[in-house]
Amino acid sequence: MTNRKEVAKLAGVSEATVSRVLNGIGPMKETTKKRVLEAAKQLNYELNAVASSFARGRSGNLGVVMPHVPKVHLFSTYYFSELLSGIGEAVRSKGYGLLLLFRDPATAFDYVSLYRTQRVDACIVLGASGIASEAAGVRRLAEEGLPFCVMDQSFDHPGTGIVAADHERGGYDAVRHLLDKGCRRIGFLNGSPQYSNSSDRRIGYERALREAGIEPDGSIVYEGNYSRTSGRKAAEAVYRDLDRLDGIFVANDRMAIGLIQELRAKGCDVPERLKLVAYDDSDAASLTEPPLTTVKVPFYEMGKLAAEKLLVRLSGKEQDDALPINEKLQTELKVRKSSGA
Amino acid sequence: MTNRKEVAKLAGVSEATVSRVLNGIGPMKETTKKRVLEAAKQLNYELNAVASSFARGRSGNLGVVMPHVPKVHLFSTYYFSELLSGIGEAVRSKGYGLLLLFRDPATAFDYVSLYRTQRVDACIVLGASGIASEAAGVRRLAEEGLPFCVMDQSFDHPGTGIVAADHERGGYDAVRHLLDKGCRRIGFLNGSPQYSNSSDRRIGYERALREAGIEPDGSIVYEGNYSRTSGRKAAEAVYRDLDRLDGIFVANDRMAIGLIQELRAKGCDVPERLKLVAYDDSDAASLTEPPLTTVKVPFYEMGKLAAEKLLVRLSGKEQDDALPINEKLQTELKVRKSSGA
Repeated sequence: MTNRKEVAKLAGVSEATVSRVLNGIGPMKETTKKRVLEAAKQLNYELNAVASSFARGRSGNLGVVMPHVPKVHLFSTYYFSELLSGIGEAVRSKGYGLLLLFRDPATAFDYVSLYRTQRVDACIVLGASGIASEAAGVRRLAEEGLPFCVMDQSFDHPGTGIVAADHERGGYDAVRHLLDKGCRRIGFLNGSPQYSNSSDRRIGYERALREAGIEPDGSIVYEGNYSRTSGRKAAEAVYRDLDRLDGIFVANDRMAIGLIQELRAKGCDVPERLKLVAYDDSDAASLTEPPLTTVKVPFYEMGKLAAEKLLVRLSGKEQDDALPINEKLQTELKVRKSSGA
Repeated sequence: MTNRKEVAKLAGVSEATVSRVLNGIGPMKETTKKRVLEAAKQLNYELNAVASSFARGRSGNLGVVMPHVPKVHLFSTYYFSELLSGIGEAVRSKGYGLLLLFRDPATAFDYVSLYRTQRVDACIVLGASGIASEAAGVRRLAEEGLPFCVMDQSFDHPGTGIVAADHERGGYDAVRHLLDKGCRRIGFLNGSPQYSNSSDRRIGYERALREAGIEPDGSIVYEGNYSRTSGRKAAEAVYRDLDRLDGIFVANDRMAIGLIQELRAKGCDVPERLKLVAYDDSDAASLTEPPLTTVKVPFYEMGKLAAEKLLVRLSGKEQDDALPINEKLQTELKVRKSSGA
């Protein structure tokens, strides 16, 4: 299949210029435009439909594509609601609409046709994991050089834009704090390793342990799915291993709350018997008993930044639009009672 | 200005038929269609633009219009997040997109042009209050006979669709429970009366008191704005009136949590010194200390029902589409510790 690179070569322009012409972004000399369109035609470059829809005009909508998870009220999770609040704010202030669509994570979603049918001008992909079907949908977007950005999940394909938080550092800080509180046997309740943010936290967890001269022990690493129920379920294994644990790091607040509730029911109190650091700093973190020591993730700012970056690109005012968006925001440890503070 | 009624009269058809033709809904005899379009033309009926955009095709989007409230992360409030989860589920299962737009509550929002420019096929209005600018935007939708529905807020204008919860009954149940717990001097921290759900709860509050032989006392009715901060602020007045109170009804969980936290800081514990019933049954209700006795509102179901009703109308399969949508769902009292249970 012809790619952007070949079109650029034949037209004698940069790949960025090919994207700008085919996506109708920014001002462009007529002669350059003509050269690119002729090269694309000559090479039978596939994106003519998209290019011509852009030539006709814009939709005025930023697409946000979320996974469909049966029975889960996604908008009611802190993660999605804060990201959407941030995206919504950026979109609103630029007079754009926010077109929400849902994908079945098990099938490669056809993002490209959203552009072709002019329903969106750019896309943010939320809640993606690294499974093959998700990667295939995202790869297609990158290959077409369309304006898009994945939230908090890394993909290998070049040209994939990303806005993320520094979860490796977040995981490191959480474990460093437990070490400072005197813990030496620190377990980890993580989410699925299909999410790069899960793996990043684990890297930080292991690095902090090694720096303290402790060899990581896979038998006290547990897996949940970021729901409160999965936190409750993990309590059984954690309770069984209690004589090998004096602290635990949990990859989000929801699982931490489920874990604490169920451990309490078994007679094991946090932080008296087990010190705990959670992750997210959701509303619930300061409401629950004990209040959670947790790593604050700036989801709102991440959503806002991703949308702003995309809308600036659509305006054609940015110079570096040849490079995919690549932003990493810092997390922050919030100390409360669950870690024995 | 010409209205639908006059077009219907001249064409010799019902108002519903005029709407169906002009909104391109459902199957329709060519002769009827022609008669309506000719009558509309003859009367210079304003909606030709909409009618013709519909004739060209559908957008495949359901519009959801939310207020813009500076600094508030609306998606992170239980109210909006659950409504959106329900709307999202209905929209997804029908293959529709959900186009989110934001309005400045102080200006009449131009809903009609969303239809005319074919960005949406139908609209749900979220978070509207009764102020003049909001009423003007909604009235225009009703006058044009466009498919739409307001969530949880009543407007006088005929033709206004609504899906709401029975807040009068919810308020009644809350106060009835406090009376059953032995309270006789029951205060009420309500939200702004600009929202019909606030006024409805107050009617229920007063009815329960009167039935128990207690004359409502306006001096122990307080007003917040549904935020946790406004609950904290109200604590001052409630604390001042404490010798005249043995129970309090609070119009949402967020205000209740703020009120409880601030009263505790002043040395007044709930429920020991003051029994409390809140409203919503958000996630936080069972997490906070004490867990809240609260009135559960089926926001998810309300959102889902509103979207389903609108999408059925767009399919043209429903018979009673001459009447605006009008649905009222039941609330349910959830008893926990804050009421001394």
